[in-house]
Amino acid sequence: MTREANTGLRQPEVGVAILGMGTVGTEVVRLLNENADSFTHRVGAPIVIRGIAVRDLDKDRNVDPELLTDDPQSLVDREDVDVVVEVIGGIDGPRELILSALQQGKSVVTANKALVAAHAAELSQAADDSRVDLYFEAAVAGAIPIIGPLKRSMAGDELQKVMGIVNGTTNFILSAMDETGADYEETLAEAGRLGYAEADPTADVEGYDAASKAAILSTLAFHTRVTSSDVYREGITKITQQDIQFAHKLNCTIKLLAVCERVQNPDGGEAVSARVYPALIPKSHQLATVNGAFNAVFLEASSAGQIMFYGPGAGGAPTASAVLGDLVAASRNVVHGGRAPGDNPYANLPIANFGDVETRYLVSMLVRDEKGTLSQIAKVFSEHGVSISTVQQDDYRVIGDDAEGKDFARLMVVTHRAKESDLAATVEALETSHIVASVASVLRMEGLEGI
Amino acid sequence: MTREANTGLRQPEVGVAILGMGTVGTEVVRLLNENADSFTHRVGAPIVIRGIAVRDLDKDRNVDPELLTDDPQSLVDREDVDVVVEVIGGIDGPRELILSALQQGKSVVTANKALVAAHAAELSQAADDSRVDLYFEAAVAGAIPIIGPLKRSMAGDELQKVMGIVNGTTNFILSAMDETGADYEETLAEAGRLGYAEADPTADVEGYDAASKAAILSTLAFHTRVTSSDVYREGITKITQQDIQFAHKLNCTIKLLAVCERVQNPDGGEAVSARVYPALIPKSHQLATVNGAFNAVFLEASSAGQIMFYGPGAGGAPTASAVLGDLVAASRNVVHGGRAPGDNPYANLPIANFGDVETRYLVSMLVRDEKGTLSQIAKVFSEHGVSISTVQQDDYRVIGDDAEGKDFARLMVVTHRAKESDLAATVEALETSHIVASVASVLRMEGLEGI
Repeated sequence: MTREANTGLRQPEVGVAILGMGTVGTEVVRLLNENADSFTHRVGAPIVIRGIAVRDLDKDRNVDPELLTDDPQSLVDREDVDVVVEVIGGIDGPRELILSALQQGKSVVTANKALVAAHAAELSQAADDSRVDLYFEAAVAGAIPIIGPLKRSMAGDELQKVMGIVNGTTNFILSAMDETGADYEETLAEAGRLGYAEADPTADVEGYDAASKAAILSTLAFHTRVTSSDVYREGITKITQQDIQFAHKLNCTIKLLAVCERVQNPDGGEAVSARVYPALIPKSHQLATVNGAFNAVFLEASSAGQIMFYGPGAGGAPTASAVLGDLVAASRNVVHGGRAPGDNPYANLPIANFGDVETRYLVSMLVRDEKGTLSQIAKVFSEHGVSISTVQQDDYRVIGDDAEGKDFARLMVVTHRAKESDLAATVEALETSHIVASVASVLRMEGLEGI
Repeated sequence: MTREANTGLRQPEVGVAILGMGTVGTEVVRLLNENADSFTHRVGAPIVIRGIAVRDLDKDRNVDPELLTDDPQSLVDREDVDVVVEVIGGIDGPRELILSALQQGKSVVTANKALVAAHAAELSQAADDSRVDLYFEAAVAGAIPIIGPLKRSMAGDELQKVMGIVNGTTNFILSAMDETGADYEETLAEAGRLGYAEADPTADVEGYDAASKAAILSTLAFHTRVTSSDVYREGITKITQQDIQFAHKLNCTIKLLAVCERVQNPDGGEAVSARVYPALIPKSHQLATVNGAFNAVFLEASSAGQIMFYGPGAGGAPTASAVLGDLVAASRNVVHGGRAPGDNPYANLPIANFGDVETRYLVSMLVRDEKGTLSQIAKVFSEHGVSISTVQQDDYRVIGDDAEGKDFARLMVVTHRAKESDLAATVEALETSHIVASVASVLRMEGLEGI
């Protein structure tokens, strides 16, 4: 029975198709079976699994074999399926299945961040056209409710900034580097052994996963279509133990942040900046206490002020919790009528040019340890419109032979807020200056407002 | 136009009655006017204020005087009012107005925790009978989304525990006592001067406000009707600087907690325990970092694990943010049809007998400083079924003449988990024992699982 036929009418049960039975799908099926009575009470009618699409029918699974199929499209097409739960992963296959479900008037629940970040416009349009729901709470920060709160709870407010630790792998690695003093490669290997990093960790450590989440969060926060390709992205592979020690000297810690911000465009209008990079944040900031594989999302809104959501960012059970929360909501709407708010990108703000984005920076470099160096360095910053907040010389320790000779010292410059383009020009000028041997690293600093 | 007449139909605008124009009401009206376009986009139709009920018509206000009325009932009764926003406060007047609105098929948004905690059953029934919405996000923890996430995001999970710092006044006082070393009376006076405590602070410092919130949170978390009178309650008025110093010695801090827990009844079934008291929590716990007037709510769910929500717990703008989020949701349902989930108390669990509730305790007492004291004390605990975890004597410092004479020392006993009734019997026995001069304080300890 399609949605159009039953809006507002009570129906005896809600038919669900589960696409995929990996870690999350298995947990979703188990919980639907074990807590069937609770779900019936919460929805107003029983949720009935019509079928489960799997790749390998022969694999031993703890479910009624009659439910299994290796033909997901036919399952989606069944007349008695009202809601489709997609937990397969990947882009192309799920995209077609989800579009087909939406076009048939069936609501969809997905945990697929890469798909939503890349194709939200197309999927949302299909949901709007059929007046059904598209839910994806599990796509960002696992079990932490953030999609729902952004769509609903914050709907009476104006978001200014969303800052998240939204990738467990990189947060595990950075936390471990911070605690153990080990270097990046060693810590990545350890994360792999412990199951916190995949065999190919590129999507995590290069920030692609976080960028997908930044796109989704920005879209909802600023009512503006933002896709993964709009997100400026740097990973954590170049973070050294020395960077972490520098951060400590400044009472900071380093986190891979997804920063989504309402900014002022040079033309005076508003724009959206979405960026992912490792950044220093003060140890006193709420996000600094988020360690290991945990996730957190920090919101700044005009009326609400600063709000933070914290919890487990991944794992079968937490992700299943988010998927099932969405499934209950979608099923309630099947039974009682109504639709959840969509991503509603009415504001349609431009995406900010990354060069126009402002933040603060820590620039560390090897410089000639001689008179007048500091004033020359300061001049380079000033000439490019970057104002210096503090300069720290690394205990005036002369770097040994293994570096660039004995006449060099390490300098850490903390800037005031400056444009990315001005900072980039400053770094270029520093690198060609005869007094600077090398710019060792440039790290952004976030969460310093009022400090 | 009443809801029944327009379910599922688009209508050109949503008419709103605002009851009350104090700090929150003023902010709600201002934001509705200033951000009218955003609200129209988010709702799908303009939100139009039909009128604002105030007590004093002569007071100068920054709104069209035509909108003002001192007859809230007539405003509620207007044909063109679809949603009623109640931000008056108090119980009896608002209760009648809200019931009347719901009975007329109008959705209601309220920030009134005392009313919801006392009369949720009656109000929910009225909303159900008319198939309209009753929203109260602002009733707990100000702008922090917690009611919505409990109703929706966690709807696929089983809550085990909700632990909240939900009263800003008491958290401000306890944080200040912790930081400054000042005593309770002095800190309360300072909180009053700074506007963090009311002239009559009873509702806050005696835990009545937190108990209302515990009732609301328990009802939603456990799908069981819990009212303020079901909540065990102790305030913070007896907390001394010495208690805080004891807490520090145990690497803990003291917070007024609302603890809502799914517990095992002696008969083997499940029950709900809701309680408010000052408790020690480890400094390493996420809730320990919540200082000043901030609020936080910590959830433990079977699948999701541990999730925390943090933010400003009070104030005109944050509360208005929560009210307006609810107003957008209620208005969307007027335009698009559908209903938000209610409190749905289908589980109908019994309220646990407080004596059966288990937690850990810090018992501090003055004892005779002589041989064999410790074993006698241990025997008293053991005879009442309370197992001791650690005992600490206060640096073996003999208490001076100003206390109970020179032969006494201070003893801090930390217990394992024990029943409230067993602990109460232990304390009674200690107080009548000749080796104990006095039991100085008994404090619960929370958040110690796994420590």
